[in-house]
Amino acid sequence: MLWHVANPIHKSFGSDNHAGAHPSVLAAVAAANSGDAVPYGADDISQRAEQMLCEATGAARAILVFNGTAANVAGLSLMLRHPYEAVICAQTSHLNIDECGASERILGCKLLPVDTPDGKLNPDLIATRLGGRGDEHRAQPRIVQLAQVTEVGTCYSLAELRAIQDFCRANDLLIYIDGARLANAAAQLGCSLADLGACADVLSFGGTKNGALGVEAVLVMTGSLADGAMYQRKQLMQLGSKMRFLSAQVIGLLDDDVWLANARQANAMARRLAAAVSAIPGVEIAYAMEGNGVFASIGQEQAELLQQDWNFHVWEATADGRCVVRWMTAFDTTEADVDGLAAAVEASVIHVKHASAR
Amino acid sequence: MLWHVANPIHKSFGSDNHAGAHPSVLAAVAAANSGDAVPYGADDISQRAEQMLCEATGAARAILVFNGTAANVAGLSLMLRHPYEAVICAQTSHLNIDECGASERILGCKLLPVDTPDGKLNPDLIATRLGGRGDEHRAQPRIVQLAQVTEVGTCYSLAELRAIQDFCRANDLLIYIDGARLANAAAQLGCSLADLGACADVLSFGGTKNGALGVEAVLVMTGSLADGAMYQRKQLMQLGSKMRFLSAQVIGLLDDDVWLANARQANAMARRLAAAVSAIPGVEIAYAMEGNGVFASIGQEQAELLQQDWNFHVWEATADGRCVVRWMTAFDTTEADVDGLAAAVEASVIHVKHASAR
Amino acid sequence: MLWHVANPIHKSFGSDNHAGAHPSVLAAVAAANSGDAVPYGADDISQRAEQMLCEATGAARAILVFNGTAANVAGLSLMLRHPYEAVICAQTSHLNIDECGASERILGCKLLPVDTPDGKLNPDLIATRLGGRGDEHRAQPRIVQLAQVTEVGTCYSLAELRAIQDFCRANDLLIYIDGARLANAAAQLGCSLADLGACADVLSFGGTKNGALGVEAVLVMTGSLADGAMYQRKQLMQLGSKMRFLSAQVIGLLDDDVWLANARQANAMARRLAAAVSAIPGVEIAYAMEGNGVFASIGQEQAELLQQDWNFHVWEATADGRCVVRWMTAFDTTEADVDGLAAAVEASVIHVKHASAR
Amino acid sequence: MLWHVANPIHKSFGSDNHAGAHPSVLAAVAAANSGDAVPYGADDISQRAEQMLCEATGAARAILVFNGTAANVAGLSLMLRHPYEAVICAQTSHLNIDECGASERILGCKLLPVDTPDGKLNPDLIATRLGGRGDEHRAQPRIVQLAQVTEVGTCYSLAELRAIQDFCRANDLLIYIDGARLANAAAQLGCSLADLGACADVLSFGGTKNGALGVEAVLVMTGSLADGAMYQRKQLMQLGSKMRFLSAQVIGLLDDDVWLANARQANAMARRLAAAVSAIPGVEIAYAMEGNGVFASIGQEQAELLQQDWNFHVWEATADGRCVVRWMTAFDTTEADVDGLAAAVEASVIHVKHASAR
Repeated sequence: MLWHVANPIHKSFGSDNHAGAHPSVLAAVAAANSGDAVPYGADDISQRAEQMLCEATGAARAILVFNGTAANVAGLSLMLRHPYEAVICAQTSHLNIDECGASERILGCKLLPVDTPDGKLNPDLIATRLGGRGDEHRAQPRIVQLAQVTEVGTCYSLAELRAIQDFCRANDLLIYIDGARLANAAAQLGCSLADLGACADVLSFGGTKNGALGVEAVLVMTGSLADGAMYQRKQLMQLGSKMRFLSAQVIGLLDDDVWLANARQANAMARRLAAAVSAIPGVEIAYAMEGNGVFASIGQEQAELLQQDWNFHVWEATADGRCVVRWMTAFDTTEADVDGLAAAVEASVIHVKHASAR
Repeated sequence: MLWHVANPIHKSFGSDNHAGAHPSVLAAVAAANSGDAVPYGADDISQRAEQMLCEATGAARAILVFNGTAANVAGLSLMLRHPYEAVICAQTSHLNIDECGASERILGCKLLPVDTPDGKLNPDLIATRLGGRGDEHRAQPRIVQLAQVTEVGTCYSLAELRAIQDFCRANDLLIYIDGARLANAAAQLGCSLADLGACADVLSFGGTKNGALGVEAVLVMTGSLADGAMYQRKQLMQLGSKMRFLSAQVIGLLDDDVWLANARQANAMARRLAAAVSAIPGVEIAYAMEGNGVFASIGQEQAELLQQDWNFHVWEATADGRCVVRWMTAFDTTEADVDGLAAAVEASVIHVKHASAR
Repeated sequence: MLWHVANPIHKSFGSDNHAGAHPSVLAAVAAANSGDAVPYGADDISQRAEQMLCEATGAARAILVFNGTAANVAGLSLMLRHPYEAVICAQTSHLNIDECGASERILGCKLLPVDTPDGKLNPDLIATRLGGRGDEHRAQPRIVQLAQVTEVGTCYSLAELRAIQDFCRANDLLIYIDGARLANAAAQLGCSLADLGACADVLSFGGTKNGALGVEAVLVMTGSLADGAMYQRKQLMQLGSKMRFLSAQVIGLLDDDVWLANARQANAMARRLAAAVSAIPGVEIAYAMEGNGVFASIGQEQAELLQQDWNFHVWEATADGRCVVRWMTAFDTTEADVDGLAAAVEASVIHVKHASAR
Repeated sequence: MLWHVANPIHKSFGSDNHAGAHPSVLAAVAAANSGDAVPYGADDISQRAEQMLCEATGAARAILVFNGTAANVAGLSLMLRHPYEAVICAQTSHLNIDECGASERILGCKLLPVDTPDGKLNPDLIATRLGGRGDEHRAQPRIVQLAQVTEVGTCYSLAELRAIQDFCRANDLLIYIDGARLANAAAQLGCSLADLGACADVLSFGGTKNGALGVEAVLVMTGSLADGAMYQRKQLMQLGSKMRFLSAQVIGLLDDDVWLANARQANAMARRLAAAVSAIPGVEIAYAMEGNGVFASIGQEQAELLQQDWNFHVWEATADGRCVVRWMTAFDTTEADVDGLAAAVEASVIHVKHASAR
C-alpha cells in the first residue's frame, strides 16, 4: 500500500490535523490489541486512561469522544438544564462557525455570538449578552464558551480566565472551554492542565491535533454536572464499543508527558516562524502569536503564489489587496520546515514586488 | 504497559466487540501514518476506501462514521424528508432498544416498533403499521428498518429481503438495513455485499465487530439520498479530521477479503457451538442460528454457574427457571474456544442435575 | 354569515369537540374585551384564571396553552431533566398515537408504549418497562403518562391512581395525567379536581372538549417542576399575547361550576345511550363506559348504514364482520339526541337482519 | 365580572397587542357558535377563511396558527429541507431576539443574524452570510427571513423587496416574511396583500395585532412548499380542534376589509403622533416611521417621568442619558389618545428642563 500525502514536497502548514499520529500513540494502540476486553469503557485500559486524565486535570470525570465537535456538544449538553438556555460565545468560535450548526440541531440551544477583537471574550463582552434575563421572550444565557487557544491563535492568560470565572460565578453562568488545543495553551502559559481545568466547569482536552489518531476528552470539573454523562455519550453517538483503542491513544499521549513535548515543539516552531516572517517587509502578524498558529497579513497575490507550493489557509480577505493567512505548526514540524516556509515567504515578497515593478 | 483482558482464562463469548482488531487493520493504520494528509476525507486513502466500498456493495456513496448507532442515525437522517415521518422497526431492534433513544433525540422522529417472533419483519408485519397514513394526527411511515443479521441472530434470506423491497416500493417506503453484522449475513447466505445492498436504499456495513478498531460505513444505494451527506456527517459529529485512520481500517478489511474470512470464521465457530450444545440434554436453540450468535435456552442456575468462568449475556429470563443466553463468536474465536465452552455447558448440566438431586 | 354544520339533521356523536362553545364561555370572552390589557398573562383576568385553577385543583402553577397536544408536550417538558429520559404510556394513548410524533420531535424523548386491555396502565404493566435502568444503552424511564379518562372511555378509580402513585414514588418515576377529559372523570368519580390533581406531578385540564372555544391548562402540582415554565410556554409557541381571551374562557367554565354541569350532562347522556344500546341485540359495550364515550361492538354493515345519517367514528375493525364504534357525547347533547341515535341503532339492526335474510 | 385594564386612565402605547378584539371579530366568533361542526379545519367556516386568505394574498395554501412565533416556526419548517440549513435574518428580528430560541429548539436550525442600521436586510447584507456555502463545516443558508414591517417600525418598499427576491432567486435562497404587522405594511405602501405575498415564498399574516382575539395565518405562496403542511401544523401543536373559532376571526377581519381599516387607523395615529412629537425640542425620531410604531429618542429622565402615566416601552438606552422609546398605536387608538400623549411628552420636556435648571 502506498498513500499520497497532501503535498509530497513540503510539510503542510494547513492545520495541525494534517499531521499523522505520534509513534507513542500507535504503539499504545498496538499494545492494547491483546485478546479480549470488555467493551464500552469498562476495560482496564479505559479505566486507567480516565484516571490519568482526572489526575492530570483535576477533573471529576473524563469522557472520551471521537472528535472536537462532539466534545463541544457533549460538554455543553451536560451543562444545559433547560431547553431555553443559551450559550454565549465568540462570533469567531469553532462552535459558532465551524460545526455545521451541530449545537443548534443536537442541543436545540441558541448561541449568542459576540464580536471580539482577538477571538477572546471578557466580562464586559459577556455582559452585553445578559440583557434579556428574566424575560420569557428571550433565551436565557447559561454557559460562557471559550476556546483555549482561540481560533485565531490567541491564548487567555490564567488571570484573564479567572476574571471571567469570577464574573460568571457572580452572574450564575457556567464556563465551558473548547480545548481542542489545550495542550498548546498549557505549553504557552507554562502552566498545568489542572491550572486550566480549574478555570472551567467543563472543558475538552484535544488529543487529535496533539498527535492522536482521533480522540478528545470531555473533562467534568464540577462533578455534579457528570450526572448522566454515560447516557449522553451513548445517545450522542460517541460511545465506542472497543473503547480501549480510544483510551490507549490517551495513554500514549499522557505517559511520559508526550502531550507536552508535542505541544512545546509545535509552539516553538510557530514562534520560530513568527519571528522569521515578522522581520520580512510587508508581512505583519495579525493576531498575537500565543500557541501553534501564526496569523499574518500579507498581500493576496503573494498568498496565491505561496499556495502553489505550500499548504495553508487564507483566513480572511482584508482591504487593499491584502489578506490574513494562517500557518499552523504541529508536533512533527521541524526547524527545517519552518525555515523553508520563511524563505519562501521572503522570496514571494521579492517576486511580487518585482512583478509589480515591471 | 500491561493490560488485563475481560477474562484472562477463556475467550469471551460476550460479544463480537470483545475481540480486538485484526492484524490487517492495525497494519493498514500504521501504513497510513506516513507524514501529512489533507483532513476530512479528501486524502487518497479515504478516496480509495470509499471507492472500494462502492465497488464491493454497488453503493453510490459510502460515508464512514465512528460507530453503529451513528451509522443508523446518519443513514435514517439521509432518508427522512419531513420531521413528521416515522420508522417502522422490529420491537427488538438495536435501533429501538439499545441506542438510548438516539433517533428520537437526534432525528426527532417516531419509531413504530412491531413485535416479531424472530426479530424479522415481513410485509404483513409492516402493513400493521400503515393504518394512519394520510391522517394528520399520525406520524407518517417513511422507512422500514431491518437488521441483517438481526439482534437475535436470525438472517433474512435474499428472497425475504426482496419480498420486503417489493412491498416497500409498492407502498412508498424506503428500506434501511442496519448492517452491524452485514459481513456475517453475506457469509451465511453465500452472497455478495452487493446482493444485500441491492435490497436497501441505505444500509450500514459494520467494520467494528468484523475486526476493525472502530469504523462503520453508511452505504447510500439510491444516489439521490446522498444529497447533503457530507453536511450531515459533520453535523452528526461523525467527521474525523484524520479520516485516513478510519479509512485505512476499511481498506485493511476489504483488501484480500479479510472481512469475509473473518465473518466465515465467526459463523463457522457459531455453527460448531450450536451443533455441540444442541446435542446436550436440556439445552435448546432459541432462535435459528444464522450468523455468529447462538441463542440457547438453558436453566437459569446453569447459566449462573457458567458465567463464573465464561463471559456471555443472559438475553432474557423465561418461564420455569429457564433463560435464553447469547453466545457470540468473533473472527478470532477458535475451535478450542468453542469446544471448551461446549464442554463447560455439558458439565454444568450434570452439575446442576446432581445439585438438585441432593 | 351562514355556516353549515357537520350534519344539519342530527347532533354529532363524532367527538365532544364537534360541539361549539358554552354560552358562559362566549360571554366571558366578550366581557374581557373592554379596552386595553397588558399582554402575556400579566393582566388581571389571567391572574384570576390562574388563581381559580390553582384553588380548584391544588396546583402550584397553572399555565394555559392552546390545545391538548401542547398541554401534553409542555407538561412532559417540565418534568424531563435529561434528553435520554423516556415516558411510559399506554400503546393506545393520544400521546403515542394521535399527536403526529410531537413528543419525539419537540421533546426528543422516547416513548415506551405498553399494550393494555382497556387503555389503563397499572404497576405491573409499568414494571415491564423498567428493565433497562442503569444501562447506558437504554433510554431511562422518568415519567408515567396516564389519560383520565382514557382514549377508550375508561376511567381510573382514585384507588387505582393512588396505587400507581405509590409505585411511581417507590421507583423514582413522575406521573403526568392527560386530562383532556378530566372534567368527565371528576363527574364520573364524584370527586374534586383536587382529588385527581393530588395523584399527579403535572396534569392537564381540558377546557376545549368541556365547552371552551379552545384552551387547556397545564397544572403543576409539584411546584419545583414549574421552574422555567414561562420560558417553556413561550418557546413551545403557546404564549398568547392577548392572554386574557384564553383566561376568560377558563373563568367562564370555572365560575358557577359550569365545567362540572357540562361534564355531568355529557356523562349522563353517555350513560343513557349505553343503557339504551346495550339492550339492543347484537350490540355489545366494548369498554367499560366510564365517561362521555360509548364504545360498542356492532356489525360493520350496520355501522356503515348508521354513518349515512349519524356522525361517529369506527374505532377499530374486529373479527367476523364486526367493529367497535365510538359515540361521544358533549355538554350540549340532549336526551332527544341520544334517544334518536338509540332508535336508529335499533332500526339498523332490524334493517341489516332483513337485508341478510333476503 | 369586572376587569382592570393595563392603565385605566390612558390608552396604552405599549404594544398593539394591548388592544382588545375588534367587534367584527367577536361577532364572527359568536356567529360561528351555532351547533356542531367537524373539527380540525374541515368545517365550512374554515374552508371559507382559507379561501378568502388565498384570494386576498395569492397564496396556494393558508394555514392558521395560534400566534406569531408559531407562524414563524411553521413557515420556516415548511421551507427547510435539511437539518443543516440556516436562516439569514436581521440581528434585531423578533425571530432572533424575542422567541426564546424557539427556532433553535423546534427546528434545530441555525440563525445567521446580520447587523442592520434600520432592521432591514438588503442584498449586500445578505451576501455577507453566504461565504461558507459548499463547506461541510458550515450551516448552509437556505432562507432569508424579513419582517414587514420590521421590529423598529420601518417598512420595505416593494422595490426593495423585489431586489431582495431577485438576489435570492439568483442565489438559491427562499424568502420568508414575518408579517405580524403585514396589514400595517400594506396600508403604509398602499399596496395589496397579494403585492406583498408575491415577494415571498412563505409569509405570515398577523391577525392578532390587527384586531383578532388571537390568530395568525401562514401563507404558502410557492405551492410545492405546502407539502405536509397539515402534518407540520399538528406536530407543531398548532391544530385547533374547534378550528372554526380561529377561522371566524379571520373572516371577521377580511370581510369588508376590516383589516385594512384597522391598519390604516393605527398607521394614521402613528403618523399623527410622529408629526406632533417631532416638533417638540429634544425629541428625535429614531427610525423612519413607516407603520404603526413611533421610535423616538428622548431623555431617559423624561421617559421615566412619562411612564408614570403612560404605558410604553423603552427600546434601548443610548448615550448621554438618552434612550429610544417605542410608542405603538392600534386599531382603536384615537386622535384624542395621540394628542394626549403628545401633550404629555411636551410637558415632560418642560418639566425636566425646569427640574434640571433648579
